[in-house]
Amino acid sequence: MTVIDKISTVSEMQASAADLIKKGKRIVLVPTMGYLHEGHLSLFKIGRRQGDCLIVSIFVNPAQFAPGEDLATYPRDLKRDLALADREQVDIVFTPDAQALYPQHFQTYVSLEKLPEHLCGLSRPTFFKGVATVVTKLFNIVRPHIAVFGEKDFQQLAVIRRMVRDLNMDIEIIGGPIIREPDGLAMSSRNSYLTPDQRSSALSLNQALQKARRMVEDGVRQSKQVITAVTELIRSNPETRIDYIAICDPETLDDINTMDRPVLMALAVYVGNTRLIDNSILVPEN
Amino acid sequence: MTVIDKISTVSEMQASAADLIKKGKRIVLVPTMGYLHEGHLSLFKIGRRQGDCLIVSIFVNPAQFAPGEDLATYPRDLKRDLALADREQVDIVFTPDAQALYPQHFQTYVSLEKLPEHLCGLSRPTFFKGVATVVTKLFNIVRPHIAVFGEKDFQQLAVIRRMVRDLNMDIEIIGGPIIREPDGLAMSSRNSYLTPDQRSSALSLNQALQKARRMVEDGVRQSKQVITAVTELIRSNPETRIDYIAICDPETLDDINTMDRPVLMALAVYVGNTRLIDNSILVPEN
Repeated sequence: MTVIDKISTVSEMQASAADLIKKGKRIVLVPTMGYLHEGHLSLFKIGRRQGDCLIVSIFVNPAQFAPGEDLATYPRDLKRDLALADREQVDIVFTPDAQALYPQHFQTYVSLEKLPEHLCGLSRPTFFKGVATVVTKLFNIVRPHIAVFGEKDFQQLAVIRRMVRDLNMDIEIIGGPIIREPDGLAMSSRNSYLTPDQRSSALSLNQALQKARRMVEDGVRQSKQVITAVTELIRSNPETRIDYIAICDPETLDDINTMDRPVLMALAVYVGNTRLIDNSILVPEN
Repeated sequence: MTVIDKISTVSEMQASAADLIKKGKRIVLVPTMGYLHEGHLSLFKIGRRQGDCLIVSIFVNPAQFAPGEDLATYPRDLKRDLALADREQVDIVFTPDAQALYPQHFQTYVSLEKLPEHLCGLSRPTFFKGVATVVTKLFNIVRPHIAVFGEKDFQQLAVIRRMVRDLNMDIEIIGGPIIREPDGLAMSSRNSYLTPDQRSSALSLNQALQKARRMVEDGVRQSKQVITAVTELIRSNPETRIDYIAICDPETLDDINTMDRPVLMALAVYVGNTRLIDNSILVPEN
């Protein structure tokens, strides 16, 4: 039996937010595209501890999908999502519809000039513009004091942090650590696309990160050497096609050739037709 | 003797805004680039009536000036501005500096895809991106319930209204009518650039609008006929160079050929090196 408050219209959500603010409540927002898994739930737990009112948005944002991407087939199960959110003591689930968020004549976008020109932004050139725009809209509707995003989408988190700073949004951004299946696969709604064989090949992403961490522990400092080794590891798995493997600065996302400080290793790999991402911070000890 | 509160830092302004909101005050913002004239003061008067706390920002926004435009020479007189704002019972004047609003690594912009591809946006292709970005920043810092903009910058007002709607900003936008000198010249800080002879030529903008209104009153409905007539009128004045003369839809700014409903007539004319704008709604009676 669901006791959670489900709000579907922008005006109702704005009115509720205004009311919460008037009452001095601290609002925490966790934006999601639904089809919730343990990764999301871990963000809800973080959010739950941070404020008085935990609001989860569920919205598959068309603006961040390019033509040919999986907007139409993106997995959805609102009933199950509501039950899970309820169990995690989410106060409000906000489920706007696309027509309301992108009405006729919609034409205003938020975009960043540098961070998207790395990693996922290279193969998905309009993705972060879509993300920054919808997150700005959700922030303006929900008016959170705090928002929580997963570190699995590391570049997205970097983009949001930069956007919040640049546009003077008075919102604290918290990143939640990657949650993995027992076998190491990073949780993702898109894992549901994988066949059993592909699921097995998909483990190579985390294996690549583990191998990279071991190499760095063993004293390797040249990024190229690590990238070559993990490229080979991933390619040895059937149905894999590497989009990118990068070792870069965690803030600017600029490539780093010699690992003389903590760096981000990030990768995107197609397994069959499913594009998966994963990442880890590599910390070279002196 | 000035009693007005002058705030120069983003953090202090955000703290004051949060405090005002907590107290349930209605905040009204009038963003300006300073060098205040009667046009600005009329917006302050409108703002004064609309809320509990009237905040005026004074910031010459580098992001809306292209290289070669008049950023460096834009007229400034903060002391006089403060005295005028004080006289108009402005509560807070917010005067951030450019380095604080656009720090190193700044890279996030708000832009519109259609409205800027008309009128001023054609000769100033990055102008509205700069305006939309700084207004978003000011909104996030000052957190107004209401913001007031002059109708002289008609396209800017249209852009702000569209942006507020598209990004779900919970802010009421009010337009204030154009204020004119006794001889009809629309008030503008840039009028200070004009020599006496240029000042005389500059009257042709308002004369053009008056002529257009008379033609419409006399039954003319073809935009082309009006534009041809006022082009001639303006060109007969020394030192004038027309940037554009347009008759368009007041909301989309799309050109209108046959005036069968209220339309916007907008014009931009260089007088010497000074670019002046003016506009009027033309209302064809049946």
